Amino acid sequence: MPVNLSAPVAGSLLPVAGVTLGIAEAGIKRADRKDLLVIKLDQGATVAGVFTTNRFCAAPVTLAKNHLASGNEIRALLVNTGNANAGTGEQGMAAARHTCVDLAKLLGCMPEQVLPYSTGVIMEPLPVDKIIAGMPQAIADLKADNWFNASQAIMTTDIVAKAVSRQVLVNGKTVTVTGMSKGSGMIHPNMATMLGYIATDAAIAQPLLQQMVSEAANRSFNCITVDGDTSTNDALMLIATGKSGVVIDVANRTVLQAVVTEVATALAQAIVRDGEGATKFITIKVEGGKDETECKKIGYAIAHSPLVKTAFFASDPNLGRILAAIGYAGVADLNVETLKLYLDDVLVAENGGRAASYQEADGQRVMQQSDITIRVVLNRGAVNATLWTCDFSYDYVKINASYRS
Amino acid sequence: MPVNLSAPVAGSLLPVAGVTLGIAEAGIKRADRKDLLVIKLDQGATVAGVFTTNRFCAAPVTLAKNHLASGNEIRALLVNTGNANAGTGEQGMAAARHTCVDLAKLLGCMPEQVLPYSTGVIMEPLPVDKIIAGMPQAIADLKADNWFNASQAIMTTDIVAKAVSRQVLVNGKTVTVTGMSKGSGMIHPNMATMLGYIATDAAIAQPLLQQMVSEAANRSFNCITVDGDTSTNDALMLIATGKSGVVIDVANRTVLQAVVTEVATALAQAIVRDGEGATKFITIKVEGGKDETECKKIGYAIAHSPLVKTAFFASDPNLGRILAAIGYAGVADLNVETLKLYLDDVLVAENGGRAASYQEADGQRVMQQSDITIRVVLNRGAVNATLWTCDFSYDYVKINASYRS
Repeated sequence: MPVNLSAPVAGSLLPVAGVTLGIAEAGIKRADRKDLLVIKLDQGATVAGVFTTNRFCAAPVTLAKNHLASGNEIRALLVNTGNANAGTGEQGMAAARHTCVDLAKLLGCMPEQVLPYSTGVIMEPLPVDKIIAGMPQAIADLKADNWFNASQAIMTTDIVAKAVSRQVLVNGKTVTVTGMSKGSGMIHPNMATMLGYIATDAAIAQPLLQQMVSEAANRSFNCITVDGDTSTNDALMLIATGKSGVVIDVANRTVLQAVVTEVATALAQAIVRDGEGATKFITIKVEGGKDETECKKIGYAIAHSPLVKTAFFASDPNLGRILAAIGYAGVADLNVETLKLYLDDVLVAENGGRAASYQEADGQRVMQQSDITIRVVLNRGAVNATLWTCDFSYDYVKINASYRS
Repeated sequence: MPVNLSAPVAGSLLPVAGVTLGIAEAGIKRADRKDLLVIKLDQGATVAGVFTTNRFCAAPVTLAKNHLASGNEIRALLVNTGNANAGTGEQGMAAARHTCVDLAKLLGCMPEQVLPYSTGVIMEPLPVDKIIAGMPQAIADLKADNWFNASQAIMTTDIVAKAVSRQVLVNGKTVTVTGMSKGSGMIHPNMATMLGYIATDAAIAQPLLQQMVSEAANRSFNCITVDGDTSTNDALMLIATGKSGVVIDVANRTVLQAVVTEVATALAQAIVRDGEGATKFITIKVEGGKDETECKKIGYAIAHSPLVKTAFFASDPNLGRILAAIGYAGVADLNVETLKLYLDDVLVAENGGRAASYQEADGQRVMQQSDITIRVVLNRGAVNATLWTCDFSYDYVKINASYRS
């Protein structure tokens, strides 16, 4: 079950003027399941995004990047679950193009104005006909107050939907930011991937919007890991409709950037809290490093260690496993004598070994919690980094060993 | 249960002239368990080794490296299980020194002529008194034909002992190589680590011996992974006693190098076959790469992916997970259109997607086997690399979540 995570309350999700959403049950993989989403944008919106770095990136990722780069105004996003259209070669590219062409016809725009997204099984042909057949139903459903249904339509292995809204005053006017995400691991090429869509009614020129989504991703989606795998299909998109009349530029971006990053962080953390088989939500803070790279290296070594993750699942303060992970993180000149390791507020290790003050009972107390912070103080610089991950349980193996059948 | 791996037959392990081994039940962690091993070397032997690169390396690793570097002739190796003496700071160094001093007294040599090794729980003080109290029992047991008992004495989480002998003719004379190893994962700082000891009766000068053990390690112990973790205590040692009268030099090393590498490979593969919770032994061949680095990057990305490993546990030919791992391995200019993926002899993927000839039934047939080869042909160079790993089962989580208690 998700760790301290509830589904969004329908009424809490605020519409973003200039964005309408419509869903359909297209029967892509199974019948009677919301599996198709159209996000329609009014004229004048800007769109930016960050995409997976996987060399086997899916056809829709390649096409969405091409369409974004074409400079055409984006008018719609098309999302299907049940099939990732990844590892499908030229046939997959043709299939993705086909869906863009048909949605463009129905909406009266050019195919280059449509961005496609797919998530689900990989190495299987995309059922283009089912997607096309489902489009009229999704278009008929288009409405602004539809984020709750949309967040359900993009779920695959997710147990709960993930969506959040915030409002902020800029120049005395209210700006709305609403976002949703899906995914319960960094990669599940079988039935899932990581997608995020955030929209605001501020007006933001595309180059600045790209900077803002990159900065938000670096502090949110790029700081989480469930199993260390990187999907073929991951994407985080930021849409700015301009309908609030508030113009954001380099000079006044700070406040809205903070809200966008906050929304992205909430959506990213929700993915970890809903991580496959997760029973613990673990925050890893690496402080006092020379640069962000070494802080993240150490953080990810801890976060990816199956031995650390199974110890947390067992609520066993077997904290030597964390020291070992710090040691093999690949920071060549790391001095293990000068670092300190904390579990929440409990000092566990210093001077290259267990702290004299450490009591097993204190470690045990913290390990019983469902939200736990590991803090590594390197004492060699001024840079900090924070990552989020979850534990590794029987259910992770069960889910991933029994998935496709 | 170990995958196609049997314990060595006692009589199959050949003594190596110049090496005697003695074991004791020192009660280091539990009573009635072989947990202490002394390996005594006659005068004139040379010793070389490779050690963990973990920055949190254990006190005995630091001390063994210092003693080797001192240039003194090594006369004994001391191995204890039940405690890793890692993450123990200055106190741990003093404890390791203490054991060398006391064994040296009993054997009539200098402390710098003793190399210490520990494996077991980390961040716990080494029970020096128990180790010292056990030494006379181990010394009384010293004999040449004792490799079988010795291989049992170094086990921790291992289900079966790992040892092998080979003989080879060099210049018409027989040279013997006998080795043993322990470990059932790359790291188990709680109760295990990876250790290997190989001895030969050839005469080999120390600098060449160091080259030979490094080359053997690179093609064996450095090509296996169970969970991607690197222990604080790993060591592979190579001993040359010279008692056969055969002198190995740079000119005639090839034959013996091949046998030493073969023994090291058998010992390393045995660790994977006995991997915690393993049900499948997986050989990963990456061929046609530009250099070894990129071949190993791709091999390890596949070997470390929890999604790939759980799919093999489930015998599910969910082979898109392998493509995804290849894609995120970090080879920036990899062209996924030109590589081919095989499962044993079955062509699974080419041209960026599923091979036209691929039938699910063929993949299913191979996945049912307990020994499986994944072959990735990169078609971009002439370099190959081979790695070995195992699958990821419920039992891995069970073993590591319930260990220390």
